Amino acid sequence: SKFAYVRNFELPDPLLPGTFMILRIDGHAFHRLSEEHNFAKPNDERALQLMDHAARDVMTEFKDIVLAFGESDEYSFLFRKSSTLYNRREAKILTTVTSLFTSSYVFNWSKYLSDTPLKYCPSFDGRIVLYPSTTVVRDYFSWRQADTHINNLYNTLFWALVLKGGQTTTQAHAVLRGTVSSQKHEMLFSRFGINYNELAARFRKGSVLVREEVSTETEGVDGLEATPLPVSEEVSEVVSSGAPRKASKKKVRVRTTIELCHCDIIGDEFWNARPNILAD
Amino acid sequence: SKFAYVRNFELPDPLLPGTFMILRIDGHAFHRLSEEHNFAKPNDERALQLMDHAARDVMTEFKDIVLAFGESDEYSFLFRKSSTLYNRREAKILTTVTSLFTSSYVFNWSKYLSDTPLKYCPSFDGRIVLYPSTTVVRDYFSWRQADTHINNLYNTLFWALVLKGGQTTTQAHAVLRGTVSSQKHEMLFSRFGINYNELAARFRKGSVLVREEVSTETEGVDGLEATPLPVSEEVSEVVSSGAPRKASKKKVRVRTTIELCHCDIIGDEFWNARPNILAD
Amino acid sequence: SKFAYVRNFELPDPLLPGTFMILRIDGHAFHRLSEEHNFAKPNDERALQLMDHAARDVMTEFKDIVLAFGESDEYSFLFRKSSTLYNRREAKILTTVTSLFTSSYVFNWSKYLSDTPLKYCPSFDGRIVLYPSTTVVRDYFSWRQADTHINNLYNTLFWALVLKGGQTTTQAHAVLRGTVSSQKHEMLFSRFGINYNELAARFRKGSVLVREEVSTETEGVDGLEATPLPVSEEVSEVVSSGAPRKASKKKVRVRTTIELCHCDIIGDEFWNARPNILAD
Amino acid sequence: SKFAYVRNFELPDPLLPGTFMILRIDGHAFHRLSEEHNFAKPNDERALQLMDHAARDVMTEFKDIVLAFGESDEYSFLFRKSSTLYNRREAKILTTVTSLFTSSYVFNWSKYLSDTPLKYCPSFDGRIVLYPSTTVVRDYFSWRQADTHINNLYNTLFWALVLKGGQTTTQAHAVLRGTVSSQKHEMLFSRFGINYNELAARFRKGSVLVREEVSTETEGVDGLEATPLPVSEEVSEVVSSGAPRKASKKKVRVRTTIELCHCDIIGDEFWNARPNILAD
Ligand SMILES: Nc1nc2c(ncn2[C@H]2C[C@H](O)[C@@H](COP(=O)(O)OP(=O)(O)OP(=O)(O)O)O2)c(=O)[nH]1
Ligand SMILES: Nc1nc2c(ncn2[C@H]2C[C@H](O)[C@@H](COP(=O)(O)OP(=O)(O)OP(=O)(O)O)O2)c(=O)[nH]1
Ligand SMILES: Nc1nc2c(ncn2[C@H]2C[C@H](O)[C@@H](COP(=O)(O)OP(=O)(O)OP(=O)(O)O)O2)c(=O)[nH]1
Ligand SMILES: Nc1nc2c(ncn2[C@H]2C[C@H](O)[C@@H](COP(=O)(O)OP(=O)(O)OP(=O)(O)O)O2)c(=O)[nH]1
Ligand SMILES: O=P(O)(O)OP(=O)(O)OP(=O)(O)O
Ligand SMILES: O=P(O)(O)OP(=O)(O)OP(=O)(O)O
Ligand SMILES: O=P(O)(O)OP(=O)(O)OP(=O)(O)O
Ligand SMILES: O=P(O)(O)OP(=O)(O)OP(=O)(O)O
Ligand SMILES: [Mg+2]
Ligand SMILES: [Mg+2]
Ligand SMILES: [Mg+2]
Ligand SMILES: [Mg+2]
Ligand SMILES: [Mg+2]
Ligand SMILES: [Mg+2]
Ligand SMILES: [Mg+2]
Ligand SMILES: [Mg+2]
Ligand SMILES: [Mg+2]
Ligand SMILES: [Mg+2]
Ligand SMILES: [Mg+2]
Ligand SMILES: [Mg+2]
Repeated sequence: SKFAYVRNFELPDPLLPGTFMILRIDGHAFHRLSEEHNFAKPNDERALQLMDHAARDVMTEFKDIVLAFGESDEYSFLFRKSSTLYNRREAKILTTVTSLFTSSYVFNWSKYLSDTPLKYCPSFDGRIVLYPSTTVVRDYFSWRQADTHINNLYNTLFWALVLKGGQTTTQAHAVLRGTVSSQKHEMLFSRFGINYNELAARFRKGSVLVREEVSTETEGVDGLEATPLPVSEEVSEVVSSGAPRKASKKKVRVRTTIELCHCDIIGDEFWNARPNILAD
Repeated sequence: SKFAYVRNFELPDPLLPGTFMILRIDGHAFHRLSEEHNFAKPNDERALQLMDHAARDVMTEFKDIVLAFGESDEYSFLFRKSSTLYNRREAKILTTVTSLFTSSYVFNWSKYLSDTPLKYCPSFDGRIVLYPSTTVVRDYFSWRQADTHINNLYNTLFWALVLKGGQTTTQAHAVLRGTVSSQKHEMLFSRFGINYNELAARFRKGSVLVREEVSTETEGVDGLEATPLPVSEEVSEVVSSGAPRKASKKKVRVRTTIELCHCDIIGDEFWNARPNILAD
Repeated sequence: SKFAYVRNFELPDPLLPGTFMILRIDGHAFHRLSEEHNFAKPNDERALQLMDHAARDVMTEFKDIVLAFGESDEYSFLFRKSSTLYNRREAKILTTVTSLFTSSYVFNWSKYLSDTPLKYCPSFDGRIVLYPSTTVVRDYFSWRQADTHINNLYNTLFWALVLKGGQTTTQAHAVLRGTVSSQKHEMLFSRFGINYNELAARFRKGSVLVREEVSTETEGVDGLEATPLPVSEEVSEVVSSGAPRKASKKKVRVRTTIELCHCDIIGDEFWNARPNILAD
Repeated sequence: SKFAYVRNFELPDPLLPGTFMILRIDGHAFHRLSEEHNFAKPNDERALQLMDHAARDVMTEFKDIVLAFGESDEYSFLFRKSSTLYNRREAKILTTVTSLFTSSYVFNWSKYLSDTPLKYCPSFDGRIVLYPSTTVVRDYFSWRQADTHINNLYNTLFWALVLKGGQTTTQAHAVLRGTVSSQKHEMLFSRFGINYNELAARFRKGSVLVREEVSTETEGVDGLEATPLPVSEEVSEVVSSGAPRKASKKKVRVRTTIELCHCDIIGDEFWNARPNILAD
């Protein structure tokens, strides 16, 4: 129609190639949401599992996401460097992922919080940040996991003081002010008998979802199809890297699974064992 | 922590001030979603009402949205020109609105499609386009409503040929190829007895959600509170325009409602009756 | 070659259509340049004329510039709203204009400062700012001309105190601190016999370069070519506005000149007399 | 003033940190400029030296530029990865560099083309492209130098056919169409006795300007100042890398020179000998 010229106001928004995209979503006003739905304090395992579920759904849909990290009301998704998802159009990637995460969160709420009906619509913000090197990508995830630790140590002690120690929240804040990490560990143990390091790894380390390739040996044995893996199994298409000097570009089907763990991702071990994550 | 420097890679993304933002969401792969959930063809009133519900929820939350227009699996939201929502940060506005729409769509699905359980997670993409003048804003909405008309006329005849006329979809496409508007009207009437103009306005015109101010006279009468309005009632804060030359900036509470209609928005009448929409 | 893929890192940078572009250049470190080349204080007419010359060269080359305003070491260029210069690519427009201005400044230096050889390379920064409405465009130019006035009044008195009053610069600053406009006028007159309003308009109002259409009557008379205009004459192509609803798009040759004045552009008179500037 | 709000329309434009910036300038309409000023064909050494001079001036001013490559009417400038010049504001960096290059080109014209007065104002466009890794930076420079070779071989033969072979330009184009590199070499030699590889390296390889650190041993000997170097000598401040984990940030003065060569930059040798270029 004669009005179609208004499309010309839509401007291109491609993200720089050859750069890692990290998309982070964060719950909108989850302070209130967690109160209204009586989330356990400081960590509600069911709510965290629901976040993991939504993140897994996102990774199942978007094969270019190779790693995700979640804590509290947030999740970060790392795309492989050479991703050409939606031609790297920023708004398209950003909204589609944020929308799917939200959808899954609402869709699956009742599976995890079965006795707590959802009272109103939860929502999430999202952003994409570009990281040009493997070093900054590693530092990004270290940043988030260090944050998990700091917050959890604080919150665990805070809520112990309030819920078990009978203090007001104002008092608890005052007690905590200025304390360093070792003092918090000490207070947790001496006052409440809590050995911080024995708390659930999920609370201390957050959630790590990593796309793992299923070894082809397993697949090839006796000409049999690999035994179906539980839940997380899937088949993804990994396009060979698209590097400009490669002669052939044939698609290789690789069977991948999405594995959940609550492990350290600050040290080298995790990354050395999974060179693919930062590879291309 | 020493990793916090990674925040420096987050770049500012403010949208040009003094410009209308239109945020359009569109269902991701709703061709499949509508098939899988047996949406009535060509229009499923329940599915469209669900869209309207989600859009209303968005407008209830974001007071700077003054008008919305929906059709098929899409919705467009117009922000008042002087909006400073989230300091006009593009990703923040875009994702929060898209996420809330998605959330409401899933949350309210069962209210509208009660006998059709949602099989999987629906999602939406979103984009913000800036329009610098009232003329292009009007043309934008004319573009969407003209599109509604064109698609609906085509689809109505197409599905009549298939569902009532016993044609294959291939045959129906062939019949329609090259026909102009008047021929489609004629075929609809002569073959199927359908007077196009008597079809539901919702299908022909799409859905218009407009924020209306409740007249203060009504409110002031006898010192009584205004009689509560049904469902759509709400109280919003409208900050006076923020124009640089205004001396005072006191907030004025204005009672507004969000009204749904299926009216023409291409002609002048709608806009002349609501000068506020494009005012500031 | 196999290396050509690096072009993919060049990202598009189109500027929003339907919006006024204002490109402002500003001399880099002209404090030092003016010192090193003994510019007259507070205003060096030759240096300002050189700026005007460079700005005129820019307007002669870029027909979409309809108005320019200069003061001190800066110049602002207004493009007509519908300009499609270089497909509105930001870097291309920005650098080409800034470069040409610089080139002309150096090229023509000796014409204006004939007894002061240029000692080193002057340079300019540049930026493009988008303005969505005629109101903000007017306010932009008011901002610059008000700035001219404020700075000139201050500088005129400051240098009178120093050069004629024998004060140190520190003393002069101290005297001026906290004074309002009327006090400065008063001091200028009482101490130095200077009636501010009788100073050269160039210094008080800055330089306005405006593209004017030469009336076609003049051109048509007796089938004669219009009498050649002095210096500023030129022939430009004005493409009809490109508005989406126009049926025909034939090019119309319009004879235009670029006129220099030092007039008020804050009030309405200037703009009312030249509706074309803000027209399309 | 009350108009100052228009500054709010100036939006931030920071470039992604941790990424190499390459700024390329290219002569505007140098086809015409070279004709009008009788540049020697296919290469005018004086014109190329003038380009080198302007590029050197740019590098002398902007210490964060570590490498530059020039050919024909273009020059590319590589900034060290950690550069924080103008807080990485895109337009500021882009225009200031492009303007200074232009200024120097005009300023120094007569030194190189002394018998050819500049007829009008030359200008350049400029663009900044971000490259996230050392590999793509290397490929970028390989792309430009390979381009130099391809164009020069073509142009050398083309102009030999025209100027020495008496062909029209149309004929020369026809002869060259479809020929591969080896055929061009062969024709150059058999018809014109030109051994391509014996042509000036400047024409075959382009110009490489590299910032080299002057060894501190030289400087320290006997407590003497290093012997002043010719022309290119300078003292620059190299701020230690700004990497987030560095404890101290003291500035170290390093004496650097800018060296010109016409060497291969496609192979590893150049880069291996200068690890600093891509270092931080
Ligand atoms: N009780 C409880 N609260 C949680 C849990 N996970 C997250 N929250 C709450 C604690 C925080 O108030 C909030 C997350 O902090 P944010 O900084 O994201 O704040 P919030 O979402 O309220 O605001 P925002 O819209 O993100 O600016 O969510 C949980 O497992 N249990
Ligand atoms: N049967 C039926 N289908 C509908 C209705 N509303 C929307 N749809 C379907 C028809 C179209 O196939 C689709 C909307 O077209 P789109 O161009 O948005 O395509 P789709 O969402 O499949 O792909 P996309 O992800 O947006 O590129 O949704 C409805 O009320 N009834
Ligand atoms: N004496 C004299 N100085 C002038 C004249 N026009 C401009 N200037 C000087 C006065 C100011 O110091 C300077 C312009 O101020 P700016 O704010 O642009 O500062 P400057 O160019 O030094 O630094 P910048 O690189 O723009 O941040 O140029 C003139 O006609 N006569
Ligand atoms: N004769 C001669 N011409 C040269 C020399 N260096 C550059 N040129 C001319 C040859 C080309 O026509 C032109 C450079 O090609 P470009 O692709 O940059 O084209 P041009 O600058 O004309 O247009 P542009 O504004 O960059 O799109 O400059 C030289 O040393 N001698
Ligand atoms: O969400 P974050 O952690 O980036 O930080 P914030 O303080 O919530 O800020 P915003 O969400 O507004 O960017
Ligand atoms: O969604 P639209 O109508 O803007 O157009 P499209 O063809 O679906 O394209 P995209 O969603 O990829 O912008
Ligand atoms: O040049 P201006 O007037 O925009 O202001 P500034 O203070 O010089 O700042 P910058 O040139 O760095 O934008
Ligand atoms: O200048 P280049 O080589 O990038 O390529 P072009 O064809 O001249 O295009 P433009 O200068 O318009 O980007
Ligand atoms: Mg936040
Ligand atoms: Mg939150
Ligand atoms: Mg959070
Ligand atoms: Mg679409
Ligand atoms: Mg869709
Ligand atoms: Mg659609
Ligand atoms: Mg400045
Ligand atoms: Mg200046
Ligand atoms: Mg200035
Ligand atoms: Mg070019
Ligand atoms: Mg060129
Ligand atoms: Mg060129």
